[in-house]
Amino acid sequence: MAGFVEALTPREKALSSAAAAFGFPWRGGKLSVPADSCSGRILVPVTAGENYPPFSRSTRDGYAVSSADCLGAASGSPAYLTLAGEIPMGAAPSFSIAPGQCALIHTGGILPEGADSVVMVEDTESAGNWIEVKMAVQKAENTIRRGEEFSVGDTMLKAGQKVDFRTAGLFAMAGIRHAVIARLAVGIISTGDEIAPPDTVRLPPGKVRDVNASMLSALLAGEGHTVQNYGIAEDTRDSLAASLREALRENDVVVISGGSSVSTRDHCSSILEDLPHPGLLVRGILMSPGKPTLIAGMKEDRQLVLGLPGHPFSCFISAYTVLLPLLNGLLWGKTEGPWKRVFVPVQEPVFGHTGIEEFIPCVLRNGRAFPLPVKSSFSKALAEADGLFRLSTSQETVRQGEEAEIWLW
Amino acid sequence: MAGFVEALTPREKALSSAAAAFGFPWRGGKLSVPADSCSGRILVPVTAGENYPPFSRSTRDGYAVSSADCLGAASGSPAYLTLAGEIPMGAAPSFSIAPGQCALIHTGGILPEGADSVVMVEDTESAGNWIEVKMAVQKAENTIRRGEEFSVGDTMLKAGQKVDFRTAGLFAMAGIRHAVIARLAVGIISTGDEIAPPDTVRLPPGKVRDVNASMLSALLAGEGHTVQNYGIAEDTRDSLAASLREALRENDVVVISGGSSVSTRDHCSSILEDLPHPGLLVRGILMSPGKPTLIAGMKEDRQLVLGLPGHPFSCFISAYTVLLPLLNGLLWGKTEGPWKRVFVPVQEPVFGHTGIEEFIPCVLRNGRAFPLPVKSSFSKALAEADGLFRLSTSQETVRQGEEAEIWLW
Repeated sequence: MAGFVEALTPREKALSSAAAAFGFPWRGGKLSVPADSCSGRILVPVTAGENYPPFSRSTRDGYAVSSADCLGAASGSPAYLTLAGEIPMGAAPSFSIAPGQCALIHTGGILPEGADSVVMVEDTESAGNWIEVKMAVQKAENTIRRGEEFSVGDTMLKAGQKVDFRTAGLFAMAGIRHAVIARLAVGIISTGDEIAPPDTVRLPPGKVRDVNASMLSALLAGEGHTVQNYGIAEDTRDSLAASLREALRENDVVVISGGSSVSTRDHCSSILEDLPHPGLLVRGILMSPGKPTLIAGMKEDRQLVLGLPGHPFSCFISAYTVLLPLLNGLLWGKTEGPWKRVFVPVQEPVFGHTGIEEFIPCVLRNGRAFPLPVKSSFSKALAEADGLFRLSTSQETVRQGEEAEIWLW
Repeated sequence: MAGFVEALTPREKALSSAAAAFGFPWRGGKLSVPADSCSGRILVPVTAGENYPPFSRSTRDGYAVSSADCLGAASGSPAYLTLAGEIPMGAAPSFSIAPGQCALIHTGGILPEGADSVVMVEDTESAGNWIEVKMAVQKAENTIRRGEEFSVGDTMLKAGQKVDFRTAGLFAMAGIRHAVIARLAVGIISTGDEIAPPDTVRLPPGKVRDVNASMLSALLAGEGHTVQNYGIAEDTRDSLAASLREALRENDVVVISGGSSVSTRDHCSSILEDLPHPGLLVRGILMSPGKPTLIAGMKEDRQLVLGLPGHPFSCFISAYTVLLPLLNGLLWGKTEGPWKRVFVPVQEPVFGHTGIEEFIPCVLRNGRAFPLPVKSSFSKALAEADGLFRLSTSQETVRQGEEAEIWLW
């Protein structure tokens, strides 16, 4: 453990106490994007400006009828109706039906006046102008009424809803061309003398490329935020402090991805300690990996600063389980993450320890969840994983047949 | 059911027989994108061009030692080593250690020659130039050896792997700046006289906006494909045939999103029947929703044409469970979908019917899966859903406590 970690805070407590101390939500930056764009989350609830469907429609091919005319109709005792005409597609009916009449209608056609339901074509026989109805229908059967999908003023999408293939159709349906998504400006600072820029072709001895900045950028961009990279700060307090000042001038949130040496970590915590109220709130989280996570921020300026661990897998876990929930908290007040949480019975034990919350990459095979070893190749494990096993602080090993909690991407 | 559906093919059989008849994979278009881009799938496997880590590194703060020197070391019987120096971060060590010596090392530092492991700082006491080691270490302990994460020639990413936050770090680590992703050109044609363009502000009576083109575009763009929209074809055979000819000149794949009237569906199937070998292969799939799905294609020109149902929820299910697997089959030979499949015990019955494969939107609450009713508001159900329940053709209702199959986005 790093020297700066004085007491490890349980992750959920760290999130809720940070949200309380900062007075979330702050309501961050916003951006209008085409509604069929594939990134970001809805900033404020989207309400319907019109009814859908705009008229009561048939959901079947058949005959528009008054259900009262078909009361008790059956194969042996059909109802006989006269055909008043055909409802054109894409146009209002030019006629209404009187008692004893029906109208040929196609799926999506407007229900004519006088009709309250549709008899499916397979439940009828046609004999010229006479239609034999061999099955009774209930009122509204095989129709969708005006406004049934949504009515003017209905909430169509909640704040925080991801804009993706699931929402594109809804926007089209409602004629909404642009969505206002939440977009925070996030600055990323990397630290550590052993870190070289990711575009370094030939690595000098002792150096490795900066993994965390790219990983964080992709993670944040996927959530709709804009990312500016401030490169690699030198391992001195002054250099890191200067980078942080610059990044704070230009961003809502700054993420420092920690170098792995003790001195870098010390510089980082000492600089965060100097931030205005409430400053450095959380110095280490009771989770593995991801312990050396720092949460700081300034309530008046509405800016958040996080220190994340240097090891890429720890950095990822910390970003996914702490940074993303904090950004959602900042925007909407609820420190929720983007994962899909589900309990599943495991076929193989998932090994853990009590006293600390643990995250282990999880892969799905044939509909079952298995742990992926991280030790020697966390990057392949991460790329292959479908999500994470989460073992709470009170959980030890989850045995075969028991339920484990998984968080799927 | 529509007239053109002669025999319903089970979905998986439809996919495998289409893949066989078309001679998949065809190997489609490709596109080089920045490796930290958030869309698309890797076209061909990515192999490592260098070792990672590039040198054997310490994974802890402590002392680099020869494990032989610490044999049997314990609190009561420590090993005493002389401190030969400190390994600088981000540079090659300028010295090696002799038997009986150790070197101060930080997480990420290069292991000096003569050392094979690292003793954690908390297992030592320092007394000037003497280091007291109070815990034995095994060879390689607290280190990661050169190439342990990946070695030159190792497959880092498989073909078909999604490029996202999980891969961005891996690319950065390996110094890969661009990824070659699979990009198919897909043309989308909408049909149906009741359909108006999605940017229509005031809908004329009887019209609804085109939902499917926007939904399909978002779904396909999320998979990395480029989409060109051919608008709404008039409900005549000639108009639809002309649109299809135009779209086939410019795309690898054409998707016709079917109007809901019988005549549109008839035109569509009749046009697909005229396509060159093998032409129209599948006329309806044994699934609900999504029955009126057509699969056609031309082996020689390597072009695929699909007819999807007009109802937006049916269209979505058909695109998600048939179109996307076919595109993956076209590219890599395996007709797999993008979903994460997992079996979960249900708290509430999921109602189904035997004899047909069924898909029901599924929402996760407190780690449990619940069905969402679709009837009156499929668009909200889809936006809220975390995935789908899948009930196989042989499954009826899944009762409380039984396991159901879910496909999460």
